[in-house]
Amino acid sequence: MVEMTAAAAHRRADEILTNTRQLCEPILREAISSLPEPLRLMGGYHFGWWDSGGVPTLAQPGKSLRPALTICAAAACGGAPLSAVTAAAAVELVHNFTLLHDDVMDADQNRRGRPTVWKLWGVPDAILLGDALHALAVRTLVAGLPDRLATSAVSRLEMTVIEMCRGQHEDCRFGADRRVDVGEYARMAMAKTGSLMGCACALGALCADADAAAVSRMTTFGRELGMAFQFVDDLIGIWGDPSVTGKPANDLSRRSMSLPVVAALDSGTHAASELAAMYHSGSETASMDTERAAALVESAGGRRRALRDAEQRVRAAIAALTDVSTAQDLVALAHLASRRDR
Amino acid sequence: MVEMTAAAAHRRADEILTNTRQLCEPILREAISSLPEPLRLMGGYHFGWWDSGGVPTLAQPGKSLRPALTICAAAACGGAPLSAVTAAAAVELVHNFTLLHDDVMDADQNRRGRPTVWKLWGVPDAILLGDALHALAVRTLVAGLPDRLATSAVSRLEMTVIEMCRGQHEDCRFGADRRVDVGEYARMAMAKTGSLMGCACALGALCADADAAAVSRMTTFGRELGMAFQFVDDLIGIWGDPSVTGKPANDLSRRSMSLPVVAALDSGTHAASELAAMYHSGSETASMDTERAAALVESAGGRRRALRDAEQRVRAAIAALTDVSTAQDLVALAHLASRRDR
Repeated sequence: MVEMTAAAAHRRADEILTNTRQLCEPILREAISSLPEPLRLMGGYHFGWWDSGGVPTLAQPGKSLRPALTICAAAACGGAPLSAVTAAAAVELVHNFTLLHDDVMDADQNRRGRPTVWKLWGVPDAILLGDALHALAVRTLVAGLPDRLATSAVSRLEMTVIEMCRGQHEDCRFGADRRVDVGEYARMAMAKTGSLMGCACALGALCADADAAAVSRMTTFGRELGMAFQFVDDLIGIWGDPSVTGKPANDLSRRSMSLPVVAALDSGTHAASELAAMYHSGSETASMDTERAAALVESAGGRRRALRDAEQRVRAAIAALTDVSTAQDLVALAHLASRRDR
Repeated sequence: MVEMTAAAAHRRADEILTNTRQLCEPILREAISSLPEPLRLMGGYHFGWWDSGGVPTLAQPGKSLRPALTICAAAACGGAPLSAVTAAAAVELVHNFTLLHDDVMDADQNRRGRPTVWKLWGVPDAILLGDALHALAVRTLVAGLPDRLATSAVSRLEMTVIEMCRGQHEDCRFGADRRVDVGEYARMAMAKTGSLMGCACALGALCADADAAAVSRMTTFGRELGMAFQFVDDLIGIWGDPSVTGKPANDLSRRSMSLPVVAALDSGTHAASELAAMYHSGSETASMDTERAAALVESAGGRRRALRDAEQRVRAAIAALTDVSTAQDLVALAHLASRRDR
């Protein structure tokens, strides 16, 4: 495999994401348009295509990393360029179904710089829209594949949904009152984030009619990349620039458990004790000196640990590709996922 | 078709439901057991197999009408007796996924005489368990059918889920503050209740590899039966015996819109005006003289209308079976659905 420079890999990854959006958006728009009102309106709002009244807007789109993984995994396995586009759209629909439900559970008021669906239309409609996107994902996946591949693809996707439900359950439980160690945190992150990225890659391989060994390698690649992605997300949740990310870097003020915090709390340092006292005092909504908390996480080694683990996971992801001849695009995506600012 | 007496039809329907539960329960238990904890625990609690601590109980089971429709529709289309059992279990899983989410949206605290899942474990876990049952339904359906049938069955099931989401959205919107006419109410009931019963029958026909005309007739049968079922449910919600149904007959105190109420409010009678004043005064939780309200619904013709429409829908359902030679079990289920007390 020819090595790219970091800058070249970054440029290539940006190109891939843009191409992915161009390929998938027509399928996503057709799927959302097939929904009865007001699910169609709310769905298009959630995807950033129009405002809450249905007037077209240019909202910040999602990153499209998951569908890009599906398309690039198919190509890496020798599939035709367009063979995996509907599967990629199905993965994006599942991702968005889980975002809608997670926003309800986490009471998140903003996403991509705009009010969340439950905030605008209420909890029942956000639950229903999530359920409808889940159903659309299955319909889209099945419609785009020959029967033989469709059944195993659908079964794999739904196994992933169940794993994601387990991950989200654990994430909800990891409140500030509970001692979480780095191992438990990683298990949760694999279920919540790694699993869908692994599935995205596996579906790409399936679309290319790859053998079981290749599907398995792609799964490992995606799952490890997903972990790196999550750890970087955790770093952004503390040190990210809201003007770039579109959301406040408020993981500390919300007393969220994330890898830097979990690692810091687990470090046995003085900083850990002070941080624990801040995390365990007051309610979730009570104000916290987040600058001080971030400094404590850093001095307790939490930031370094998250950076190191993210790098390790990227290396593990790329190691899974050794037998794959044409995986340069996947490598570019892995580097992007671990070196991003939003 | 040989006519059965009403009593014979009732006995036969009870037999069918008992057989259905015996056939489907092993598949449902296997599916639920495959879930990671605590989803497995909550799932088995919801199905009535154990208490919230996992200790086996003999809770009142669900009616199993939907899976019975799938099995009997397959038989009516000449399918082997066991060909449709996994599809029947998948339908029951979808039904229960929607119950879990509906209970959250409607803030219902009890189901089948026990606290609902959200009441015991909180809203996030109830949403996640519903999502997981949705995924399990798809996995179960796909696993039990040859690829060719599986894809069209899955696609039909998910189209139905989307229709049910629309129906539930409308049901949530039909608060006491809104004028709903009988036509709007019927449209909502078809989406919320008729659609899954129609799908249950269609999947049975698909499992028997029936032709498109037979699938279509079975869909009509199930949808019309579903309407009759809903209208009888509405009657039970006002005049049902809580000791038989396992839930309070509180549709009036909750100011729910149901066919008897909608028809009564729409009758232009004095009773309608008095009922409207009661419905529109105070909050949803303010107490109401439900005996007086029930008498008003009755004198405004709401009860008669619901009984008449239920009978009409049963006739329409049975009329869709004219070309089906061996549909006596479906006829028995249709009569049971329209003449039941729980």
